[in-house]
Amino acid sequence: MKGLLDSILKEIRPTEDESKREERIIKEIIERLKRFEIEPILVGSVAKKTDLKGDKDIDIFIMFDENTKKETLEKRGLEIGRKIFEELNARYEIDYAEHPYTIGFYKGYNIEIVPCYKTKKVKSAVDRTPHHTEYIKRKLRQNKKLRDQILLLKQFMKGIGVYGAEAKIEGFSGYLIELLVINYGSFKNVLEAAKDWRFGEIIDPENLWNKNKGIKHLFPDANLIIIDPVDRYRNAAAAVSRQSVGKFKIKADEFLKNPNRNFFFPPERKPPSIEEIKRAMLSRGTKFILLKFIHPKININSLYSQLRKTIRSVGNSIKKKGFRIMKSDFWTDEKNLSILLFEMEVWKLPMIERRRGPPVDKDKIDQNRFLKKYKNRTYLDDGRWVADVKREITDVDELLKIIIEERRGFGKNLRDETKIEIKEDDEILDIRDKKFLLFLQDFLLIFI
Amino acid sequence: MKGLLDSILKEIRPTEDESKREERIIKEIIERLKRFEIEPILVGSVAKKTDLKGDKDIDIFIMFDENTKKETLEKRGLEIGRKIFEELNARYEIDYAEHPYTIGFYKGYNIEIVPCYKTKKVKSAVDRTPHHTEYIKRKLRQNKKLRDQILLLKQFMKGIGVYGAEAKIEGFSGYLIELLVINYGSFKNVLEAAKDWRFGEIIDPENLWNKNKGIKHLFPDANLIIIDPVDRYRNAAAAVSRQSVGKFKIKADEFLKNPNRNFFFPPERKPPSIEEIKRAMLSRGTKFILLKFIHPKININSLYSQLRKTIRSVGNSIKKKGFRIMKSDFWTDEKNLSILLFEMEVWKLPMIERRRGPPVDKDKIDQNRFLKKYKNRTYLDDGRWVADVKREITDVDELLKIIIEERRGFGKNLRDETKIEIKEDDEILDIRDKKFLLFLQDFLLIFI
Repeated sequence: MKGLLDSILKEIRPTEDESKREERIIKEIIERLKRFEIEPILVGSVAKKTDLKGDKDIDIFIMFDENTKKETLEKRGLEIGRKIFEELNARYEIDYAEHPYTIGFYKGYNIEIVPCYKTKKVKSAVDRTPHHTEYIKRKLRQNKKLRDQILLLKQFMKGIGVYGAEAKIEGFSGYLIELLVINYGSFKNVLEAAKDWRFGEIIDPENLWNKNKGIKHLFPDANLIIIDPVDRYRNAAAAVSRQSVGKFKIKADEFLKNPNRNFFFPPERKPPSIEEIKRAMLSRGTKFILLKFIHPKININSLYSQLRKTIRSVGNSIKKKGFRIMKSDFWTDEKNLSILLFEMEVWKLPMIERRRGPPVDKDKIDQNRFLKKYKNRTYLDDGRWVADVKREITDVDELLKIIIEERRGFGKNLRDETKIEIKEDDEILDIRDKKFLLFLQDFLLIFI
Repeated sequence: MKGLLDSILKEIRPTEDESKREERIIKEIIERLKRFEIEPILVGSVAKKTDLKGDKDIDIFIMFDENTKKETLEKRGLEIGRKIFEELNARYEIDYAEHPYTIGFYKGYNIEIVPCYKTKKVKSAVDRTPHHTEYIKRKLRQNKKLRDQILLLKQFMKGIGVYGAEAKIEGFSGYLIELLVINYGSFKNVLEAAKDWRFGEIIDPENLWNKNKGIKHLFPDANLIIIDPVDRYRNAAAAVSRQSVGKFKIKADEFLKNPNRNFFFPPERKPPSIEEIKRAMLSRGTKFILLKFIHPKININSLYSQLRKTIRSVGNSIKKKGFRIMKSDFWTDEKNLSILLFEMEVWKLPMIERRRGPPVDKDKIDQNRFLKKYKNRTYLDDGRWVADVKREITDVDELLKIIIEERRGFGKNLRDETKIEIKEDDEILDIRDKKFLLFLQDFLLIFI
């Protein structure tokens, strides 16, 4: 395995040229920032030197005195950012985390200028970042070997698709990866441990708690618990989904059994042919229903969390009417096309349905209401009123038309200003985006 | 209401001729029984004079000394019965309750000669009957008006179909009806109370318990609790189904609102035409599946309880495979034809199904077994293994063929020596028994 990891490291360590160029850019910006009544500080992977080759993100925090009003901090934060990027002649955007901040595009780098408070007592989530950076830097000074191990774990997680805390991935942030390596000592040790993790596993790198019992109580539904060394009451792994933890466990196990470059650098996939997809669909004997959303550009994080919310809500409406879903998933091109895909197990139902009414020993008013409503369609079943009534909706198509009309429970941006179409079975293949076809390949378990 | 009840009473009180004739027959048999070393005693409704006109059942218990061995009691009991009926030149049969006993058919009467122990400390269930008879006779001597009220309640329950403790009805025995009238004082009072009963209602005619709390504990699942005056630890209503309690509640309520002869003597029903039934079936859009059993004669009580067991077991097998039943019921001509009828809501399923496997943080052996079994049909869903696999049975027809073949969970007599056929949709109308068509009318809620 050592040979493999060494060769991977050669590919992922930033070159000296790259580092020097970055340092120059950072210095230039920091110098400019020093003119203002704030303290600029480099944070993130570049500051810690745990960035992968080709990583073009530079994060600079500008720290305000802790007595500054929130409004002032936000207003000045944006002004300063704007000023800097205008001086540099760089295109920039406003983005939103805890506070709004500017992100500029300069010499091929994404440079974030984020306002925060200079304080030990964290006032907002971003205030923790300087402390995180400080903590990791100290640890890496104490043990220089850890840096390479972090790079390896980052690239591994990137390769298997669990790197990143954003809504798209719901995976491991850079900081989490660093904490794991610090805790277990090496890339390989992390994998060895992870393959045996239970959901809700507790990792406490600085032993801030005496016993694990209290921790469980604090984070009862967590899929993974990593106590933040700079705040013992915070689970640094709160944003990691069960699916990401599970995937990491399995891939760790597979890699240890069969170490292989493909985990770090998965080969590019070629989607199956339309004919292959059609054949796979037919062989399942199910019905495919797709909701196609055409929408304006939506912030990526927001888009993914809204797609999650929307698919859950549509799925519940379908189940509530008695239909059965085999499987569902969503996909987006991250520009203006998003889809929800439902594979139906039961999509047509008879013209009548049985509706349960009140038991005959309960409130007479309820009973009479039921009897009046359903007249001579009612009868007793095991001491309870039941009625055989006309089913409102016998076909999932009709239901989806209503769901689209009402758009109840849809994510905000997917509800407004979107055009929604229903596609069934073969029609879903009207969408020919290569990544969509790869999504279908996974959905249908097509192995080529 | 008084006029109505008086006119009903005229119809249901036994005539003097009838009573005298009965007395002569009873005397004749009792005299003959006195020759043996047992004590004959008249029990049941005739003894209590709570029998309805035309009721042809005479129950005579022959009481053995309580030191008699069980085998002796059973052997001698049968011998004595046989002897009597042979002397009378009467046809007779052996039937089974707690002990075997003889039932003879003499001058139009069904005469049961049942052995029991003469004892206060009840040794077997039948030993209670003489005590029951004694208790009711004493109560009726104290209040002569109760007899008519009992006759009315009996006929009412007969009319609405909840009279009789046997497996077919799972309703109210004669003794229970007597207890209800004794407790509430009159026919009308029973109905007034019953319409407001809760399931699990507690009635304690002799106030043998101080508080209801302990009783609930003793009979936790009872649909109705009537403390037996001759044994406070026995629920005399244990055999009453929830459906019978519910039906009685509703009919009591309806009768009090609109007193009417039809409750006591329901008019004979004419079944709908075959065309009407077909139309009703079609309008529901469901699939009808019928299992037709041709079997030798089976004891009626046994037949009904086996049909209940069998339909539950077949229903569970159907649901387990993912099909959905709208409604089911059974019917028998009580000779050699019985049917189970299933109305299906979902009767066809896709060629694949999703099978849930173990979560990825559990026992590796289970995980590997699952992965090996389903090879490349597996994937992770929310941190748990799932596999899309070929469904064994996609059509409820195929499943029923297997169920019939295996006959697992069928009632004993329905399993052995039976011919079973499957009929679908229109084919179920090959059965033209009038009572079956009335059964279908109720099942399909056809109102003419």
